[in-house]
Amino acid sequence: MLAQSLQVDGEARLIAVRGGIGAVPGVRSAGVHAGIKTRKRDLAVIAFDVPQVCAEVVTTNEIKAAPVLLSSEHIASGEPMRAIVCNSGCANACTGERGDRDARATARQVGALLKIPASGVVVASTGVIGVTMPMDRVQRGLEKAVDQLEDGIKAASDAAEAIMTTDRMPKLAAYEFYVGAKKYVVGGIAKGAGMIAPNMATMLAFVATNLPMNAQSLQAALREASDGSFNMISVDGCMSTNDACYAFAPVGESAPSAAFMRALEAVCHDLAVAMVDDGEGATKALTVHVTGAKNVAQARAIGRAVINSNLVKTALYGEDPNWGRVIAAAGSIGAGLDPQAWSLLLNGKTWVEVGAIEVLTEAEAHSELEVEDIVIELRLGLGEARATAWGCDLSKDYVRINASYRT
Amino acid sequence: MLAQSLQVDGEARLIAVRGGIGAVPGVRSAGVHAGIKTRKRDLAVIAFDVPQVCAEVVTTNEIKAAPVLLSSEHIASGEPMRAIVCNSGCANACTGERGDRDARATARQVGALLKIPASGVVVASTGVIGVTMPMDRVQRGLEKAVDQLEDGIKAASDAAEAIMTTDRMPKLAAYEFYVGAKKYVVGGIAKGAGMIAPNMATMLAFVATNLPMNAQSLQAALREASDGSFNMISVDGCMSTNDACYAFAPVGESAPSAAFMRALEAVCHDLAVAMVDDGEGATKALTVHVTGAKNVAQARAIGRAVINSNLVKTALYGEDPNWGRVIAAAGSIGAGLDPQAWSLLLNGKTWVEVGAIEVLTEAEAHSELEVEDIVIELRLGLGEARATAWGCDLSKDYVRINASYRT
Repeated sequence: MLAQSLQVDGEARLIAVRGGIGAVPGVRSAGVHAGIKTRKRDLAVIAFDVPQVCAEVVTTNEIKAAPVLLSSEHIASGEPMRAIVCNSGCANACTGERGDRDARATARQVGALLKIPASGVVVASTGVIGVTMPMDRVQRGLEKAVDQLEDGIKAASDAAEAIMTTDRMPKLAAYEFYVGAKKYVVGGIAKGAGMIAPNMATMLAFVATNLPMNAQSLQAALREASDGSFNMISVDGCMSTNDACYAFAPVGESAPSAAFMRALEAVCHDLAVAMVDDGEGATKALTVHVTGAKNVAQARAIGRAVINSNLVKTALYGEDPNWGRVIAAAGSIGAGLDPQAWSLLLNGKTWVEVGAIEVLTEAEAHSELEVEDIVIELRLGLGEARATAWGCDLSKDYVRINASYRT
Repeated sequence: MLAQSLQVDGEARLIAVRGGIGAVPGVRSAGVHAGIKTRKRDLAVIAFDVPQVCAEVVTTNEIKAAPVLLSSEHIASGEPMRAIVCNSGCANACTGERGDRDARATARQVGALLKIPASGVVVASTGVIGVTMPMDRVQRGLEKAVDQLEDGIKAASDAAEAIMTTDRMPKLAAYEFYVGAKKYVVGGIAKGAGMIAPNMATMLAFVATNLPMNAQSLQAALREASDGSFNMISVDGCMSTNDACYAFAPVGESAPSAAFMRALEAVCHDLAVAMVDDGEGATKALTVHVTGAKNVAQARAIGRAVINSNLVKTALYGEDPNWGRVIAAAGSIGAGLDPQAWSLLLNGKTWVEVGAIEVLTEAEAHSELEVEDIVIELRLGLGEARATAWGCDLSKDYVRINASYRT
């Protein structure tokens, strides 16, 4: 009995560690300056010591960048995956046949340098749409990157830096978890320039673990973790041409444990929230809890509607306690809101009671909005399900950043 | 033969006239200052000399304002309609049972003053959500408005002014059309503070004609005209709690003629484009033609996706010739875009050819964007259907206007 309860305690333990994807044993990273961008690191390579299964969640945009299509082809082939290559500064999207050739050439070269099949390489790009890859620079950059592959924090940070676009900070997250008495790690890196991207892809994330599993289990786990994290932060509801999240695990047969699932969710959550906190022009972070929902799908849909509303976002920027905008956004998507049953909390305080009765005065609500981290809870009064969405405000700086010719 | 072709010519004639809804014989209007707002006109009454059929297209928001619900109830009763009452400064939305009582009291009072049943009154409100109506002021204002009811341009302009919120200009449109040799008029007034409203309802429109018809015909005509006009300008895809368009015609049996349909479409088009031109903080107007579509639904969906994109809107503000944002927005909604078949025109010039081949240089495209009225044509290469959407840019001023506490 004692042993078992210790084991249960062990399984419940989740420990945040440094190093992102570099914290995962058997993963080596590098991030170099290849010259796609003028000065900054712009090319990352990540290599896996043992064959991997790979899961993907990619953009639903009908215009998909060449590397997104190629990576899906590689993953669908069922071959074990061995490496990731990702550049910033050029999205390789809307680049026609040339774009496809360039993505394939990149995979082939990584394969040749690492002595693995080209079909074992996931290729990703982020940057301006409609620009072709400077392949000579990429080629020299790849040689440099493969030379510098290393495990650990520094190399993973370099890789996280090399995939940044308008990001101000590299984004890494990793957690240790236990299966029985044995310790494993899930770690990832991501880029995301905020809620609505500039003229480049919105988000990319690469996550790995050293817990072996099969591809189906990993795919199901990634889908579930993405739905509750990356898919709860997109502000305009549109995915870009290059959005993608890839997860890797050593080829194996075990189904993922509950501990792995929690650790994966923690990594995806941390990376997603890091994107929000780094939101273009953002002056405030907004967390929206939707509670009392009929089901999780309803809670998520309503959470996203609130987070996506330009009216909510500008009110937040202006510290304007306009709860009408929150409830109008929630009602706008036909998700089954009951106009008679909802209530609102602001930073944990009752803001509007059932029946649209204002509890906080306008002055009180305004002063609640003066802090940087705002938490709104929308209670639907319909059931027990809940979801959380994360966003930021819409500021004059957002417009400045995204209207480049006038800046 | 001659007589017939003259009649055809007559039927084809469409003549823009002044006066909006006041140009329609048998319609009297007034717009007064009731004191709901500090200084400006804020209460409009429109009365019809003969019993009317009424069609409505109202917000799909699950949170509907009390007057929207009450007007639907009145229209559904099948009783002939005789009057409209509309206030600005207060949306009477999220106002609970009190809101319903206030809307009913308003209809009752208009009915008493005009000696018509309360169920013959359409009630509409626009303004801040969550604020209750100052009924004593409304009551005195109604007496004043009914006293001032008049036909003609001046009275209709006053009414159009009284329903404005952040609008800078009253919005009126009217067209004469012919059925056989007989001349009729369709006219309307509207309010719309731009693409995404501030803390108040986005749009209201009231349209009338003196061509008698039955309710079903008028409803079908209004639905079709709205889908191609008002529903092609909403930027965030969300309708507010108070959005509504009502059309009136004398009770009759004739089905609407093609000439009426064209005139109604012209009125709705002009009012819709006037809203875009008056867009909050707008510095540029954008017209998006989607052509070569499989069907009109596809063309409209893609047109709306482009017009709704914050990235397209900020690029427009910045005069940034970023065609990748246009095509990424078009592809984001799963409407069946073929990535290999599309091409783009900017102000009538080929911008990007099939195969993502840039034809205009960046400098050329940038200078095309320096004008105030931008026209983008997206050719889908799939069929013959087309649609047009209208929008405006997203400027720093939009953020300023909508973030009231910081302005």
